[in-house]
Amino acid sequence: MVPFGKHPDVPPEILALRAGLAAIDDAGLDQRSIQAIFVGTAFGGTAMGQKILRHAPWGQRPVINVENACASGSTALLEAATWVASGRCDVALAIGVDTPASQGGGLIPLPPDDPLAAVGIPLPALYALTADHYLHHSGASARELASLVVTSRRHAAANPYAFFRTPVTVEEVLQSRPVAEPLTLFQCCPNADGAAAAVVVSAARARQLGTKVRLRAGQLRSGRVQSRFGPQSVVALTAREVYEAAGIGPEAIAVAEVHDAYSSALPPALEKLGLAPPYEAAARLAWGDYDYQGAGPVVNPSGGLLSRGHPPGATGLAQVFEVVTQLRGQAGARQVAGARVGLIQNQGGTVLDLETNAVAILLLTDS
Amino acid sequence: MVPFGKHPDVPPEILALRAGLAAIDDAGLDQRSIQAIFVGTAFGGTAMGQKILRHAPWGQRPVINVENACASGSTALLEAATWVASGRCDVALAIGVDTPASQGGGLIPLPPDDPLAAVGIPLPALYALTADHYLHHSGASARELASLVVTSRRHAAANPYAFFRTPVTVEEVLQSRPVAEPLTLFQCCPNADGAAAAVVVSAARARQLGTKVRLRAGQLRSGRVQSRFGPQSVVALTAREVYEAAGIGPEAIAVAEVHDAYSSALPPALEKLGLAPPYEAAARLAWGDYDYQGAGPVVNPSGGLLSRGHPPGATGLAQVFEVVTQLRGQAGARQVAGARVGLIQNQGGTVLDLETNAVAILLLTDS
Repeated sequence: MVPFGKHPDVPPEILALRAGLAAIDDAGLDQRSIQAIFVGTAFGGTAMGQKILRHAPWGQRPVINVENACASGSTALLEAATWVASGRCDVALAIGVDTPASQGGGLIPLPPDDPLAAVGIPLPALYALTADHYLHHSGASARELASLVVTSRRHAAANPYAFFRTPVTVEEVLQSRPVAEPLTLFQCCPNADGAAAAVVVSAARARQLGTKVRLRAGQLRSGRVQSRFGPQSVVALTAREVYEAAGIGPEAIAVAEVHDAYSSALPPALEKLGLAPPYEAAARLAWGDYDYQGAGPVVNPSGGLLSRGHPPGATGLAQVFEVVTQLRGQAGARQVAGARVGLIQNQGGTVLDLETNAVAILLLTDS
Repeated sequence: MVPFGKHPDVPPEILALRAGLAAIDDAGLDQRSIQAIFVGTAFGGTAMGQKILRHAPWGQRPVINVENACASGSTALLEAATWVASGRCDVALAIGVDTPASQGGGLIPLPPDDPLAAVGIPLPALYALTADHYLHHSGASARELASLVVTSRRHAAANPYAFFRTPVTVEEVLQSRPVAEPLTLFQCCPNADGAAAAVVVSAARARQLGTKVRLRAGQLRSGRVQSRFGPQSVVALTAREVYEAAGIGPEAIAVAEVHDAYSSALPPALEKLGLAPPYEAAARLAWGDYDYQGAGPVVNPSGGLLSRGHPPGATGLAQVFEVVTQLRGQAGARQVAGARVGLIQNQGGTVLDLETNAVAILLLTDS
């Protein structure tokens, strides 16, 4: 991946190319061995993959642009994996990219006909309503919610790819500009330009290359609103399905990259992923259960969206990058000791009546 | 599919839903048996698939939006087929949709930073340059090129899904408004709103359902400019690969739906598909070789893009709809007698240095 941040002078297709080249190089492959290319972008417009081709010798190959809101990157990865699984190819490249900081920042744009936005509910308001519900039912405090940002910044300080790497205090988080009560500015992930990529190879090629990290199970679902919190949430259903397909339960997970677009997104996500009992995650997070010395898996050692920044199309693949780095034991100062099983949850988007446009949950292991 | 034309009062997601429901019904399936949904749109904006979910009980499933310019529909089909081939699911739905007529018509929008458009080469100009080259090298006449529209309208007259069904004469084509010399208005495909869909099932489900039509081979490629006309064209390379994978050569094809976005696109496409020798297709088309009484396959019995109209995301699936209808012997007055093998070529988009953003070629058989 490329460091997330501000890249006003670099077109998105060039950021994407850099991330793609880094992934190919990291895999020990030649560019020409790439057989199919999947590019996820939420707001990069049309033909992103084809624009990349102008600068790389990847023409004459299948190129498919995919869009699933903030889950576009993990969607690209799942498509690459599906092509390999189907036998259509042995080596596929997934890239995710977006440049919201250079496009002006601000709120993630919703379609002009979006019925939620039309009644005054853009994304931060939706997450604020979620926060209200969660705090009410869990008994957690706004201060505990704010403390999640403190942990996020501390983790990010050790991640050279993260955008916001300066530590903050709970007071600074609470005193930052109000965005949507109870969420303050620091509790909303920053816009960042960025790209991330991953190479997916068949089992046979993995043996040749000595690749160790394996996608054990992955699933993608769009969700009608059954429940935003309970076990009928589409995120919870998808997680259960992934655990079952992998034959690995949440108790085995050492590291998890979770979609914390807002501080209030993190506790319910951990609960839906089976990593905390209902309405207990916020308190446990605040106590440090999901930190390096805690009992649970280390959550968002990269700093997560809250500190790494959120180029929507790239985020899912940045999460993959972090988990792969951890499972290889190459995460340096932010290494989770002995991490052998990692989880990714990438989701996003809002369409009336839907819990999420898409959630992708991936379970990776170190062999 | 839904009839292509003007649907100013119907949102694209509703057109898409209608096409999807028609395909599910046609397949003899219940809506709930759909396991994954792929939606191709070039200009419909973000979250098209998720917007459809608001109106259908298809939540909790994987939904993936794909974009490959005017090949978005065939890309959605290939993704559905790849998911089924990979074993991820048994029943997948592909939908393509766009509403350019309701969005104002006119030229297909190119990105603001498009380098070709910046020097005055929007799509009609590119196809006009192609026409110049082709007429020069083939010795064909502008009148022969115009005559292809006459055939297209005659075919479309028998297709209730086509937008332009009124016959025209060569004089009317030549006298219609000049767009880009030598192309006149009638030689450019009309903007149309529309949606089309197809259900893809595994071989096991096909046996249960009694489904006869089979996707024997399909491939998608993006193309660097090696040659827009010769055997090194990415369209020619892709066609050869599809024939090899299918074990079926061009001589076996009874019906072909070819991407005639402009009259000048059709002759080179037939040559690249191996259906005519180099620079002979225009004359052969004008003589009627590819008409119902001709020696070659019947080309564009639907009327093609020139008469059916061109909602970019839907066109590839409309071509599939036509070929499937033909292979089933259900095409009524436009039936190609005894059609057992059909070909689809769907392509489009322009990015500097690329021959095409994507070309998809599919070979279907009746068993």
